[in-house]
Amino acid sequence: MDVYEQALNLHKSLRGKIKVDLRGNVNSDNLKLFYSPGVGAASKYAQCSSAKLKEVSWTNNLVAVISDGSAVLGLGDIGPEGAMPVMEGKAMLFKHFANIDAVPIVLDVHSVDEIVAAVKAIHKSFGAINLEDIAAPKCFEIEDILKSELDIPIMHDDQHGTAVVVLAGIINSLILTGKNIADCKIAMSGTGAAGTATAKLLHLYGAKNIVMVDSHGIIGPARTDLSAEKMQLLAMNKDRLDGDIKAAISGADIFIGVSKAGLLTAEMVKTMAQKPVIFALANPEPEIYPDDAKNAGAYIVATGRSDFPNQVNNALGFPGIFRGALDHNVNKITDTHKLNAAEALAALVKNPTTDKIIPNPFDDGVVDAVASTIV
Amino acid sequence: MDVYEQALNLHKSLRGKIKVDLRGNVNSDNLKLFYSPGVGAASKYAQCSSAKLKEVSWTNNLVAVISDGSAVLGLGDIGPEGAMPVMEGKAMLFKHFANIDAVPIVLDVHSVDEIVAAVKAIHKSFGAINLEDIAAPKCFEIEDILKSELDIPIMHDDQHGTAVVVLAGIINSLILTGKNIADCKIAMSGTGAAGTATAKLLHLYGAKNIVMVDSHGIIGPARTDLSAEKMQLLAMNKDRLDGDIKAAISGADIFIGVSKAGLLTAEMVKTMAQKPVIFALANPEPEIYPDDAKNAGAYIVATGRSDFPNQVNNALGFPGIFRGALDHNVNKITDTHKLNAAEALAALVKNPTTDKIIPNPFDDGVVDAVASTIV
Repeated sequence: MDVYEQALNLHKSLRGKIKVDLRGNVNSDNLKLFYSPGVGAASKYAQCSSAKLKEVSWTNNLVAVISDGSAVLGLGDIGPEGAMPVMEGKAMLFKHFANIDAVPIVLDVHSVDEIVAAVKAIHKSFGAINLEDIAAPKCFEIEDILKSELDIPIMHDDQHGTAVVVLAGIINSLILTGKNIADCKIAMSGTGAAGTATAKLLHLYGAKNIVMVDSHGIIGPARTDLSAEKMQLLAMNKDRLDGDIKAAISGADIFIGVSKAGLLTAEMVKTMAQKPVIFALANPEPEIYPDDAKNAGAYIVATGRSDFPNQVNNALGFPGIFRGALDHNVNKITDTHKLNAAEALAALVKNPTTDKIIPNPFDDGVVDAVASTIV
Repeated sequence: MDVYEQALNLHKSLRGKIKVDLRGNVNSDNLKLFYSPGVGAASKYAQCSSAKLKEVSWTNNLVAVISDGSAVLGLGDIGPEGAMPVMEGKAMLFKHFANIDAVPIVLDVHSVDEIVAAVKAIHKSFGAINLEDIAAPKCFEIEDILKSELDIPIMHDDQHGTAVVVLAGIINSLILTGKNIADCKIAMSGTGAAGTATAKLLHLYGAKNIVMVDSHGIIGPARTDLSAEKMQLLAMNKDRLDGDIKAAISGADIFIGVSKAGLLTAEMVKTMAQKPVIFALANPEPEIYPDDAKNAGAYIVATGRSDFPNQVNNALGFPGIFRGALDHNVNKITDTHKLNAAEALAALVKNPTTDKIIPNPFDDGVVDAVASTIV
């Protein structure tokens, strides 16, 4: 039985991965305190104040995991029903790793305006919002609008959670290769949510030469089809390179793929600079398998998979980021937070090796280390 | 320390009444089944099918408790933050009484169109929807639209839950008074959500003469200010009575108040028919206190309070109604369901007395009895 059959059977037997439980026992004596009429005192206390509401309700520890199902895992646009098992799984991870109560919300609307309206309508029910698996480019606009209009922490994890964890791995890779990020040529494949946010965070961290590739080739000056979002990526293409993925990878110190299975060939790896670092993060099938990359000369290989070394796993980021935001009453997750979180994650690996550039989400202290940076 | 101080202290010490918990333990071995990549099999299975989604996610046992906070308890329009402690309390009752996972959702939008849009946008996240504490008359239109457009159980509990429990109490009151509902004059004060739905359900049960009173007097033929909703109530005013509340109550066999404290005087009770039945359900202060009503000749008195006999408590209704709907894949809660649920509740009291016309929600078998009628 393969992992998919096993997983489906497990889901059918549990009929759900999370449940609601009570923080106190209700009985005929105390019902008047938990509910009518006594609860009215808590309601009056909380009226018009989300801060006071957090003192008397579960919103102090509550994250909504919200998706319209338009870009789920490797499955694509599978809609709200299809998205729910993933969002429920994410809620499970929030609880397991960070003891955060998380509620999966799948949306049956898909335009920017409708998604924004729905999230705004329900946002006071929650202490923070994790946007998840919403397709690019609408995910960028949706997050921007919500962050500017709402005063609770909002993070699209596919973008920023991924970016934080990738940067953590890159920080330790640079230590091992002895290179300075400002001098590195970084080739990236994939300009969706994860790729775009990762490129921006690497740039903030000091990367000066990032060559992005989408399905039409390099985001270069010859392109006439670039969106506003991709024009920002073009600005990181220091040498104003045009061409195909081979041109992007030739001479690169680092390759980061958040694109599709098998995209990176051994031949391409052989054209990279010395001590090539390869993050082949397509899931479940990476851009290149670690053995093939190593055989072609790769010095460090990371994937999104747990069955190879150096798993770039979002579960390293979002639990601590939201834990910190909730605990420290942080209402905006900023670029500084993301940079600090990545450095904290990288620093957890005391002695990085080429097979250990990043912690495991099940390691002790990961959530606390990340949470302590969100202040 | 009064009940309100106690309740506020309890809320501050617990910092929430519900939490999320896990149905299985996550570890580094099974993460691939609960989450990526294995969860993709559950997602593919559930895609485009809420029925299949129920087999692999928590939606099979999940109710959203949704309010815009426009008509909360005795507090009125206190908005989403004010509403949350009540909605969280309701979620607690769902869990305690019926083992249903319920998530409180407070809305920061208030028009019919906006509320409908928000609920439609999120409805696929849930197995059923309990609308709560939404002001009349918009609550009627909101529920009608949602019931007609969505294929999951939707019930505005202030309307129908209340109506079911009141009817249960009336059924046993009729046994004790030896009267037939078709012959009774029923005076009702309050034409909001609860009053309107209760009148309609009593009418369906066989009541032919229901005289409703709002703040302008009897809903009678002389009124020129009646909404479409109130025109329906006028149709139940068999004798086409006009006038004030005294005219409504004079000669009435049954008084049902869902209005305001102190509205019913001893003098009014004295003008009622023999063996007067009084449901003084305003909360927390009833229309008349039981002792005062009894001294004025009342035969049976019910209130909304737990510190007097005959508590008309919504917790008798909604847990079993939603339990039944979820367990039996019922997608619409109908008038027949409500009538059957009320009869089942009434029948749980084997030997009704004037001080015991209705079960206690903590009695064994209440949820099962009600749930068995929602088929």
